[in-house]
Amino acid sequence: MRIPILEHILSANDRLAAENQRLLAEKGILVINLMSSPGAGKTSLILRTIEALGEDVRIGVIEGDIASRVDADTIERLDVPVVQINTGGTCHLDANMVRGSLDQLPLDDMDLLIIENVGNLICPTDFALGEALKVMIPSVPEGDDKPYKYPAMFAAVDAIVVNKIDLLPYLEFDLSAFRKLVTGLNPEVQIFEVSCKTGEGIGDWADWLAAMLTK
Amino acid sequence: MRIPILEHILSANDRLAAENQRLLAEKGILVINLMSSPGAGKTSLILRTIEALGEDVRIGVIEGDIASRVDADTIERLDVPVVQINTGGTCHLDANMVRGSLDQLPLDDMDLLIIENVGNLICPTDFALGEALKVMIPSVPEGDDKPYKYPAMFAAVDAIVVNKIDLLPYLEFDLSAFRKLVTGLNPEVQIFEVSCKTGEGIGDWADWLAAMLTK
Repeated sequence: MRIPILEHILSANDRLAAENQRLLAEKGILVINLMSSPGAGKTSLILRTIEALGEDVRIGVIEGDIASRVDADTIERLDVPVVQINTGGTCHLDANMVRGSLDQLPLDDMDLLIIENVGNLICPTDFALGEALKVMIPSVPEGDDKPYKYPAMFAAVDAIVVNKIDLLPYLEFDLSAFRKLVTGLNPEVQIFEVSCKTGEGIGDWADWLAAMLTK
Repeated sequence: MRIPILEHILSANDRLAAENQRLLAEKGILVINLMSSPGAGKTSLILRTIEALGEDVRIGVIEGDIASRVDADTIERLDVPVVQINTGGTCHLDANMVRGSLDQLPLDDMDLLIIENVGNLICPTDFALGEALKVMIPSVPEGDDKPYKYPAMFAAVDAIVVNKIDLLPYLEFDLSAFRKLVTGLNPEVQIFEVSCKTGEGIGDWADWLAAMLTK
């Protein structure tokens, strides 16, 4: 009984996601679905991206969390329009939650919408939100074996931003083995290496994103 | 329509979990459900626990992952009985998966069963496995704000093992603020601070676990 129900939910979500995508494309807004484990650096990457591109690009943010609005408060301090979604207990955002948030954003004055998903490497994979690009952030302390364990996530994304490279001297993380493993699952993926703490590598990420905005 | 279905699944799981619990208690086996974000150090803590207690305590392990058997291979090298469960895409173990694994473990020659759940701070909270104790591992690089975002997990556990304290000098993590936040959600919880890398703090954790075994 459970499989047909799940299929029904998924196809309803896919339909809503396609509507979101159409609406946002009409407005000329590039939409990113940003995913990672808890604490890998989603909010930090958003802050660095605003810092790098915010003068030229009009950015809006949707923050997804089980509970709390600490991340939305952090973003709001940079004078960027932000909506917080609290999912209650749900382990991912869905297209309907995003649809409900769009009314609260100044869509006519935005170029880029970054949607920070719930911290989770599994559930968000199955739920499109209306994004043009899926981006995930693995972080160095999580270890270089994560692609073995969460292959669907690594295979589904357009770009991977490896965060916390400032901690490489203190950890065993083999970047070249990691890259090889990732490109085995996803040959076309863009891989960036950054430290949101020091700012290292953020320029390459921001340049790529700027190029995507003009596509 | 979805809420009654979810209740039905949960109560079936709860019934199976109670059966697991009864079976394992009859055998005199203490069962731990070990949960954390991806890469926080579940397997590393199991390895340190085997090192600390393995001469006196007969330990068995169930490894839960979406995919791969890298963790089970690591445990097996220590000559400890281990079963790998691959959930496919499911974001948590459930009592039925655990039940199916018990037949493959030498239950008459075990004192402690450690079940490593799928790396996820959300889904495992709702699914009892038959454990006597729930233990979670937050790690220092994830940041000290995680209790705000995943309150159900922090509230549900009997013990919290903060891992990677060797990285404290390189990160902003306020241990006393974290402790205060956690005990606000869960006043009775035991909190340990460890580094599975250096071994610091493992003694306190192992002493507590040894005391639980004789209860």
